[in-house]
Amino acid sequence: MGKLYVVGIGPGGIEHMTLKAKQAIEESEVIVGYTKYIKLVEDLIVDKEIVQTGMRGEIERCKKALELSQNKIVSIISTGDAGIYGMAGLILEVKEENHIVEIVPGVTAAVAGAALLGAPLMHDSCYISLSDLMTPYNLIKKRVELAAQGDFVISFYNPRSKGRPYYLKECTDLIRKYRHGTTPVGVVRNALRDNEKVKLCTLCTFCEDEVDMLSIVVVGNSNTFIKEGKMITPRGYVF
Amino acid sequence: MGKLYVVGIGPGGIEHMTLKAKQAIEESEVIVGYTKYIKLVEDLIVDKEIVQTGMRGEIERCKKALELSQNKIVSIISTGDAGIYGMAGLILEVKEENHIVEIVPGVTAAVAGAALLGAPLMHDSCYISLSDLMTPYNLIKKRVELAAQGDFVISFYNPRSKGRPYYLKECTDLIRKYRHGTTPVGVVRNALRDNEKVKLCTLCTFCEDEVDMLSIVVVGNSNTFIKEGKMITPRGYVF
Ligand SMILES: C[S@@+](CC[C@H](N)C(=O)[O-])C[C@H]1O[C@@H](n2cnc3c(N)ncnc32)[C@H](O)[C@@H]1O
Ligand SMILES: C[S@@+](CC[C@H](N)C(=O)[O-])C[C@H]1O[C@@H](n2cnc3c(N)ncnc32)[C@H](O)[C@@H]1O
Repeated sequence: MGKLYVVGIGPGGIEHMTLKAKQAIEESEVIVGYTKYIKLVEDLIVDKEIVQTGMRGEIERCKKALELSQNKIVSIISTGDAGIYGMAGLILEVKEENHIVEIVPGVTAAVAGAALLGAPLMHDSCYISLSDLMTPYNLIKKRVELAAQGDFVISFYNPRSKGRPYYLKECTDLIRKYRHGTTPVGVVRNALRDNEKVKLCTLCTFCEDEVDMLSIVVVGNSNTFIKEGKMITPRGYVF
Repeated sequence: MGKLYVVGIGPGGIEHMTLKAKQAIEESEVIVGYTKYIKLVEDLIVDKEIVQTGMRGEIERCKKALELSQNKIVSIISTGDAGIYGMAGLILEVKEENHIVEIVPGVTAAVAGAALLGAPLMHDSCYISLSDLMTPYNLIKKRVELAAQGDFVISFYNPRSKGRPYYLKECTDLIRKYRHGTTPVGVVRNALRDNEKVKLCTLCTFCEDEVDMLSIVVVGNSNTFIKEGKMITPRGYVF
């Protein structure tokens, strides 16, 4: 009997993967994933069957993984957590009753980036993807504006691509309608993996040119401040 | 020279801790944390100095950990991720320039609970704590209402305690103003640790009596559905 693990490998290197994720990959006979994600865990997968695919073709990949899992132990891997803009949802949508699936959670990009920035996510926060491939941009902007109004800390996934270079700036401008120009903004590129870059600025000084699809952008709430180069959203303790 | 690791140990057992978190704890001479969190990792901390504290006294605990870290390797532990309603923020607030602090990210409760529920967090979502110890209840309700309006998936942390038994119900009622009664709601108690309990219902059939402070509650967005006992928020693939 086979099985499919849907594994979140965390932000990058093996270090920030959970023990369970490592064990699932080690136990698997087949590993399915994007070429560049496979690279991140290649030390764990010597002598295994590898099914690599490019950036699109998600549905095919999921079907293939489920099919293989009928009589083999298979891991399909996502970076971060597989349930956050990853593969877990599609797998469950495509899954048929006779497939056995286990989802193995991981450290998502916002949490990894936050650990490097300081502690920006200590209060109520939200995750918004700026990818408009499957979400109308109007809905994205509506969410940004409501999150800004609600004084949520906001983490932007898929913040900026060549096809939509202006969305991020338009969205931070929307936030400025509700928050001070001095509100801290953190940008982390390649959090906890090679070529990591951490940058702190404010809504005023924020420059979107430094942001790409390998980055996570965290905008503070009205109480977020910077201390000794770290971005902190106070929980509210008085001392 | 000492150092302080601020470690998110993940939802419960050692299995869902990252390799780095495990290594930080093993490397440490002193472990600081709530008694019940210390219990979760006790297999890792034989022969170490342990500083346990009760539920309050957070500021004292942080000061103590920082003081000890001046000449020892110390880990202060939170469940989930230390930067999400955990200890990371307070540590950085209290920290002085001569202290060395490293934050080690972990799998947060919403992500752990989601993996058990299915894939409810595949689209834009937010985390809201219902604890009013340091946040006025009016602000909490405002956030709930804006998140509902924005069709965010909503994860409630600290959802229900003896001191505020009605907030959760009041908040799900607020959401009902914007979402169908058939919207799926998932409740996970003790995700990925002993006495785990997973329950799926809808905004209509939701019964807050089954929820306590050891639970995470995830309310789906307008597209979330249930399939084969799993809660799925579609990302939008068409197939
Ligand atoms: C399709 S989403 C996948 C998210 C992933 N499942 C997770 O939970 O982190 C890809 C986006 O995640 C963010 N991301 C993933 N890994 C990252 C890292 N190590 N550093 C910074 N951002 C990252 C970027 O915003 C990127 O555009
Ligand atoms: C003070 S917060 C700490 C959150 C933690 N730092 C995290 O990232 O998960 C405590 C709340 O987290 C949630 N929680 C933490 N661990 C959980 C688990 N294993 N299962 C369900 N909920 C959990 C509950 O809502 C609880 O009331």
